[in-house]
Amino acid sequence: MLRVGLAQINPRVGDINANLDAVFRYVAMAEEAGCDLVAFPELTLSGYPPEDLVLKAGFVADNRAALEKVAARSGRCAVVVGFVDEADDEPVARTSARPARLFNAAALCADGTVLGVYHKQLLPNYSVFDEVRYFAPGHDDSTTYEVAGVAVSLSICEDVWVSDGPVARQRAAGAQVCININGSPFDRHKGDIREATVRDRARESSLPIAYVNQVCGQDELVFDGGSFVADATGSIIARAAQFGEELLVVDVPITQLGSGTSGGAPAGVSGGISTGTSGAQRLVQPMDELDQILGALALGTRDYVRKNGFTDVVIGLSGGIDSAVVAAVAVDALGADRVHGVSMPSRYSSEGSRTDAAALARNLGIEMLTIPIEPAFASYLDMTAQAFAGRAPDLTEENLQSRVRGTTLMALSNKFGWMVLTTGNKSELAVGYFTLYGDSVGGYAVIKDLFKTDVYALARRINERAGRAVIPEATIVKPPSAELRPDQRDDQSLPPYEVLDAVLALYVEQDRTAAEIVTMGYDAELVRRIVRLVDNNEHKRRQLPPGVRVTAKAFGKDRRLPITNAYRG
Amino acid sequence: MLRVGLAQINPRVGDINANLDAVFRYVAMAEEAGCDLVAFPELTLSGYPPEDLVLKAGFVADNRAALEKVAARSGRCAVVVGFVDEADDEPVARTSARPARLFNAAALCADGTVLGVYHKQLLPNYSVFDEVRYFAPGHDDSTTYEVAGVAVSLSICEDVWVSDGPVARQRAAGAQVCININGSPFDRHKGDIREATVRDRARESSLPIAYVNQVCGQDELVFDGGSFVADATGSIIARAAQFGEELLVVDVPITQLGSGTSGGAPAGVSGGISTGTSGAQRLVQPMDELDQILGALALGTRDYVRKNGFTDVVIGLSGGIDSAVVAAVAVDALGADRVHGVSMPSRYSSEGSRTDAAALARNLGIEMLTIPIEPAFASYLDMTAQAFAGRAPDLTEENLQSRVRGTTLMALSNKFGWMVLTTGNKSELAVGYFTLYGDSVGGYAVIKDLFKTDVYALARRINERAGRAVIPEATIVKPPSAELRPDQRDDQSLPPYEVLDAVLALYVEQDRTAAEIVTMGYDAELVRRIVRLVDNNEHKRRQLPPGVRVTAKAFGKDRRLPITNAYRG
Repeated sequence: MLRVGLAQINPRVGDINANLDAVFRYVAMAEEAGCDLVAFPELTLSGYPPEDLVLKAGFVADNRAALEKVAARSGRCAVVVGFVDEADDEPVARTSARPARLFNAAALCADGTVLGVYHKQLLPNYSVFDEVRYFAPGHDDSTTYEVAGVAVSLSICEDVWVSDGPVARQRAAGAQVCININGSPFDRHKGDIREATVRDRARESSLPIAYVNQVCGQDELVFDGGSFVADATGSIIARAAQFGEELLVVDVPITQLGSGTSGGAPAGVSGGISTGTSGAQRLVQPMDELDQILGALALGTRDYVRKNGFTDVVIGLSGGIDSAVVAAVAVDALGADRVHGVSMPSRYSSEGSRTDAAALARNLGIEMLTIPIEPAFASYLDMTAQAFAGRAPDLTEENLQSRVRGTTLMALSNKFGWMVLTTGNKSELAVGYFTLYGDSVGGYAVIKDLFKTDVYALARRINERAGRAVIPEATIVKPPSAELRPDQRDDQSLPPYEVLDAVLALYVEQDRTAAEIVTMGYDAELVRRIVRLVDNNEHKRRQLPPGVRVTAKAFGKDRRLPITNAYRG
Repeated sequence: MLRVGLAQINPRVGDINANLDAVFRYVAMAEEAGCDLVAFPELTLSGYPPEDLVLKAGFVADNRAALEKVAARSGRCAVVVGFVDEADDEPVARTSARPARLFNAAALCADGTVLGVYHKQLLPNYSVFDEVRYFAPGHDDSTTYEVAGVAVSLSICEDVWVSDGPVARQRAAGAQVCININGSPFDRHKGDIREATVRDRARESSLPIAYVNQVCGQDELVFDGGSFVADATGSIIARAAQFGEELLVVDVPITQLGSGTSGGAPAGVSGGISTGTSGAQRLVQPMDELDQILGALALGTRDYVRKNGFTDVVIGLSGGIDSAVVAAVAVDALGADRVHGVSMPSRYSSEGSRTDAAALARNLGIEMLTIPIEPAFASYLDMTAQAFAGRAPDLTEENLQSRVRGTTLMALSNKFGWMVLTTGNKSELAVGYFTLYGDSVGGYAVIKDLFKTDVYALARRINERAGRAVIPEATIVKPPSAELRPDQRDDQSLPPYEVLDAVLALYVEQDRTAAEIVTMGYDAELVRRIVRLVDNNEHKRRQLPPGVRVTAKAFGKDRRLPITNAYRG
């Protein structure tokens, strides 16, 4: 048995000293809990992902100096910590004229020194990941370290995702426990895949794997924690909660090794598991998908607001479903006294919108200001009357109203130091059904990765959890409208959201071409129209604030399409 | 001797059919000119860089179908064309759990078929490049193809940037000419480095290298053409112009091979160069650096505007240096009748600003509208009076004026279909000396990669070239001011631009830490202040439009710093 502490912490990118303090704090807790080893997430000291910070030689030097302090502090309880390592000489493998000299590394420290350093072998360079931009892949490394009489191997995140990779080789070299440190970003389907992958790896290799993940928001990414241990049969024997810091202490049963080179066969190994452990391990049950999404939205929003030095947020409340859900998430993330609503009615706002917005603010217990936009709107009509003479009103005048609201929100932000939370959803952002510099203004776009149909589901879940209609029923049941002209409704400009969202999922998230989507049975003209809208609005999406990524493909760094793009396939 | 045509064309990302048409057109021209071989730029058929378009299986299939058409069309004149190739089975080398299955490829076609396909071996994944995201590296490939009795080898861009790489191996395998196809983005120092690199490679290998580059703007990148041929002694024997399409026809002298494995020694080889050629080759002299920058700004702006379906642009003319230079570039790019200026004076605008803006418009021969912003500004002050009661005027009111101007520009854009060109320079964008959703609105930010000191140099060069003060002398000599409060001047908020720009170059472009810059002799407090401003304004820069990259590190995809970033080193 090996008593392992998985330190599921919330590091801060770039704040090496604060991350070092967190390491010291959790090492002390782990020692207190009698751990033989405590493991921290990927790139603990720099924070993850550090992006181009690692291109600063001074930053890398600072993070390596911090590692020396971790080593100096370490005692009988071994400490596995992530850091950016630097090669003494240039790595051999050349696949570019400018090969990397840095490694995504894990150090094992004990008794005051660095006992060994492991370099990540498999570097993700897809989706939101750019690790080949920064790091050279580590060479095959199956070193094991004796900790409390047990042979421990190290691996980092992606290393555990292939069958014939580092874990299998480490088992063959005699490892009895594999410590896998992670910065694994959340998406709504990630938890299951992550655990299934690690369980497969443990079972194939008959090797217990202790998986530790960080828990934080970092720009568009949320890291949900959910650290766990899979035993040598591939069973999850302990699991931490998602979306909160904790030290998960686990007594990991140790396989008595037979042949050092044996591979699979869990049956032959199961008899070798030491007894007298598992019984009372912490095993948090996984959350339902909608609750996970709400947890991710709250953590992402809280960390973005606070880590960027803000305390309060302001949200334009239209009476519609998007701003209602954003306000509810903000209250969850920051507390009602930190959230300010603004109603900005126009000549086209319905009475219902105003009363729905007021009811929401009352239900959430947040402040609500009211600033009618008519004066500025009327001024713009006057100012442009000469230039626009002889031209009929069109989208220009609709956008003007939205931009008056955006400007008003920014004035409140400037005067009171509140961050504006943007309320656009993924359906609208996909087809450009929003006004750039209007309803898109703000520091953080909370629900930008949720289709409109998802936003409705979240609204209902928020009310279920509260046991009352926090979000007014009228907001949920009325037909969506931008209210920028008389009797406007979304369905005058867009197909029904059920259809729109289905086509968008195929085109945006699954990279299908229009031609392929048509062959699946969707109306050809409709598909062409949606696809054209998505492509033509790339330039608008690029000027949006970041927001919480909750799917495997958000409008963020995981979707890098050219703006100037003539493909119509 | 081999007669090579370098087809320096302007492809369009995603427009496979248009790119195919351009290939057909240039093949016909090359045949007419008696070429033995005609070479097109990197990823000709897809356009470069295609970014995430290549993740669409349908797109890759479409581009491969186009290659078949190139092959079918080819005759005695061999055609080298770039395309995205797909592996039949998974590449072997595994450095990630999700290895790429695509290749950045060049095909050699002749007599109606594809004679061979080369896969790029060195994949840039730094700076603006993400090629490992998409492509697997090609295996060592020193195949030579006999074209008109000469052994020709292929390589792609980065492959030619290392001494011990593909070119040396191809020479050893008997190649007599290396065709190197490129999508090599412009920066102000790139031309010299590019030619010096290829000359080194040719000299080391005693192998003539024919280098063809595309010429176009693609979002933030400009590709400047400047195709050339280095002979086996490393001399440039032919060079195309920059910033324009052309077919450069070159009679390449052929080395008579001695030992197939001999490496360097140009002396021993020079006797083997065939005679009777070079004399009359086209050899355009390189442009001066400022002229190159002006060429890049015009090409980048023209292609961004037109390829995105716009014909006209609108620019807010303040009477200052930034908007003057942007307007002059726009006239160069699109013609005076496609450029519309707007003067938007406020209660704080000086008489000089108005007359300078009017003089500029007159000198450039562009339309100028005048829309005073007082009505909307006054309305906002009224609208916010209650919420702001008891608070002194501050940056809020300055930003309001800028946002009224931004909203007015966008109204003109919406009504008339003009793209707004943004006028911010790199110094301002670095330290956040601009108003988000105010002076930053627009589709394209022409001078976003030029420091203020560079903008002055460009203004003087523009006037020199015109032989008269197109940009009014007053605009150049008066102290810069945002004119958002009485008697405001930039130097009340910022250090002198000479100092600011020097520190920014070190911090932003060279990735030095504040501590390192201080040790170079800059004032510690000043450096800390500048660095803090740069870091704190990352969120604002992320919401800017793209603009022409003219340095080796712009505020674009070559600088990927976290927004949430606590590093203060």
